[in-house]
Formats: sequence, structure tokens, C-alpha cells
Amino acid sequence: MVQKVYITYNQVHTMCQDAAPRILNTFTPSLMIAIGGGGYVPARILRSFLKKPGNPNIPIQAIGLSLYESLGTDSQVEKPGTKVTRTQWLDLGSLEMANLIGKSVLIVDEVDDTRTTLEYAVKELEKDVATAAREAGREAEETKFSIFVLHNKDKQKKGQLPKNMVEDGRYLAARTVPDVWINYPWEATDIQEHDKMAQQQTIE
Amino acid sequence: MVQKVYITYNQVHTMCQDAAPRILNTFTPSLMIAIGGGGYVPARILRSFLKKPGNPNIPIQAIGLSLYESLGTDSQVEKPGTKVTRTQWLDLGSLEMANLIGKSVLIVDEVDDTRTTLEYAVKELEKDVATAAREAGREAEETKFSIFVLHNKDKQKKGQLPKNMVEDGRYLAARTVPDVWINYPWEATDIQEHDKMAQQQTIE
Repeated sequence: MVQKVYITYNQVHTMCQDAAPRILNTFTPSLMIAIGGGGYVPARILRSFLKKPGNPNIPIQAIGLSLYESLGTDSQVEKPGTKVTRTQWLDLGSLEMANLIGKSVLIVDEVDDTRTTLEYAVKELEKDVATAAREAGREAEETKFSIFVLHNKDKQKKGQLPKNMVEDGRYLAARTVPDVWINYPWEATDIQEHDKMAQQQTIE
Repeated sequence: MVQKVYITYNQVHTMCQDAAPRILNTFTPSLMIAIGGGGYVPARILRSFLKKPGNPNIPIQAIGLSLYESLGTDSQVEKPGTKVTRTQWLDLGSLEMANLIGKSVLIVDEVDDTRTTLEYAVKELEKDVATAAREAGREAEETKFSIFVLHNKDKQKKGQLPKNMVEDGRYLAARTVPDVWINYPWEATDIQEHDKMAQQQTIE
């Protein structure tokens, strides 16, 4: 039986808050890309803590990636599917891709399970930026992608991240957990009961 | 002195959960549009409760609208600015605008303060859909926009919503509050203290 882990909103909040100094000091992102829907909540919280006084908020762009066969099944955050579907991508009208060239971009999601979604996101974003850099004649400028997730599951991954991203430490998981079932609060049908379950467990 | 109101994550969660049946029964949205960053959290929570068993999740598209002069000021959710800036818009590549024609679309944000952002969102979305409908020769089909916000401030509004949206009841605020200062949890620098303040207050 797979162990279930319950995560409260306040735990998510604190994970983001605690990660913020390291993100600011090592990644220094000028843009966040939230993978929806799981990345929405951590990205919004993170924005509060990445803001430096006197500076503007770090903008968030949301992209929508879905790894799951949703038709005919009940919503399960963790049920791995086989392919990634793009439901939203960068809005190239508002966000000039050229603005990304040479910048530091933080990709945010809730969980790194099979890594398939993250692999897709990094590959496609790198491809788009490379195209924009080529068109602008700015191939010398390096765009750095980094990743923040709430949880990384310590398991065999199907997806791969670029070697230099891992070697440079541009991957940060607030928690590394065994291959457990994670119940995030935004899926809870009884949030009081959910919080009780979270209190009773030994790992968070 | 403006009264400050503290809202906990669990209150936001419950507001979305409680609003879901009415949204499902009266608006029956087939798409959500989250106004970022404030709409991210309620939209993600709402998605859990708008899902019917055996049906796919209602997709979320995020748009980014900013009403605030951010440069040189500290982050303030509520400080009204004078103009709306578009930081992200619908991704017309992934989402065919044609898919919106004749559908019911729920716009989600955290707070309806001066109504300027909501007016902008509704007007621009209606314009885009009207263009798409004209191009597709489908002007007979009515696209219905509805709005869900966590809080509506009972005050003089600068922005206006379409008359038929209000008359048809396609506007839902989980709470209507006086013109108070709302502290949402995602801005809290001390979430435990924030929750304590929320417990001590008389209105939520």
C-alpha cells in the first residue's frame, strides 16, 4: 500500500518562504514560469518572498501542461499518464521572447514525480529561447533555467533534466520524499480533516 | 484608519468550495480564466470542486493583468493604480479562440476593489471572442462570461461590468465586505501570526 502524505497550506507557504533566500541568492530569477494548475499556488506564494523592497514583483507567466488522461477518470494529482499535452503556452504577444534571452528563469511546479512534465517544459522553453536568440543575433547570451518544486519523489525518473542544470545546482526541491502519495490541500474535500491527518503523520 | 482583515488559506479554500455548487448550477463554465497573480490560488482550488466525477478537469487559462505601479513601491495587493497593464494574455496557439465561442467562461480573481481590472478583462475578452465569432461566421452563438471573486468591496467602483452580466446574476463574490484592507495569506510574512490575527477578528 502506498503511503499517503497530507500537506497543509501553511506547510506549502513555509516551504516557499524558506526556499526564497536560496532562490534569490543562487538563481536570481527575473521571471517565473508556473506550470498550471499545480504550480499556481507555490508560484503565487513565492512571488511574495522573491520581491525585494523597492523592486517590482517578479512577473509570473503561466503555462498549462497536462500529463494525465483526464477523461473518464477521477482527478488524481499523481496518476502518471504517458504524454504531455500543452493547454497554455507563453503569450508571445505580451512577453517578448527576446526579454528572456540571457535572463534567469525559474520554473515552478508542485511535484516532481516522473519528471516527464519538467523535462518537456525545460526542453520546449530552451528551444523557444534558442530560436529567439538566433533571430535576434544574441546567441552569445546564456539563458539560465532553474526549477523549484515543493516535492521531489525519490524514484526512478522517466524524464531527464539537462546535465548542466543539475550540476550547477539549478534544481531545488523544498522536500525530497519517498515514492508516497501526496495529498495537496487544494484537492481536499474536507480541509479540517485534511489538516488533522497532516498533524498526525510523522513526515511532512 | 482603514480596518485590516486577515484571511486564512483554509477560509479561501472553504469560500471556493462553498461557491462551487452555485457556479456549477448557474454558470456551468467550460473554461476558467484566472487573473494572475491573485486569481491563481482561488482558480486552482475551484478546479477541484468544479470537477464532476467521470468528467475532465475544467481547464484554466491564466492571464496577467497589473493595475499597480510596482516600481519603487513595496508590494501592496490593494493599492489601486490608474491603468491596467497586460503581462500575459490567452495563448491563442494552444487555445483556439473558436473554442470559446458559445461557451461559458468563468473569470476568477481574488478581490473586486475598484473593478478596473475586471472591467478590462471582460471587455477585452468579449472583444476577442466577438472577433473570433465574426471570422468563423458564428455570431449567432452567445459566449457568456461570468465572474467569481473571493471578496467584493462595497464601495464606489471605477470600472463597470456589462449590464446583462449583473442582471443575469453572472457575478459571484464569496464575501461582500466594507472598504477594508484585506490581507491574503499568500502575502503573509508570518503565517502563524497571520492565522492568529484572523482568529481574533470578528468578520472574515
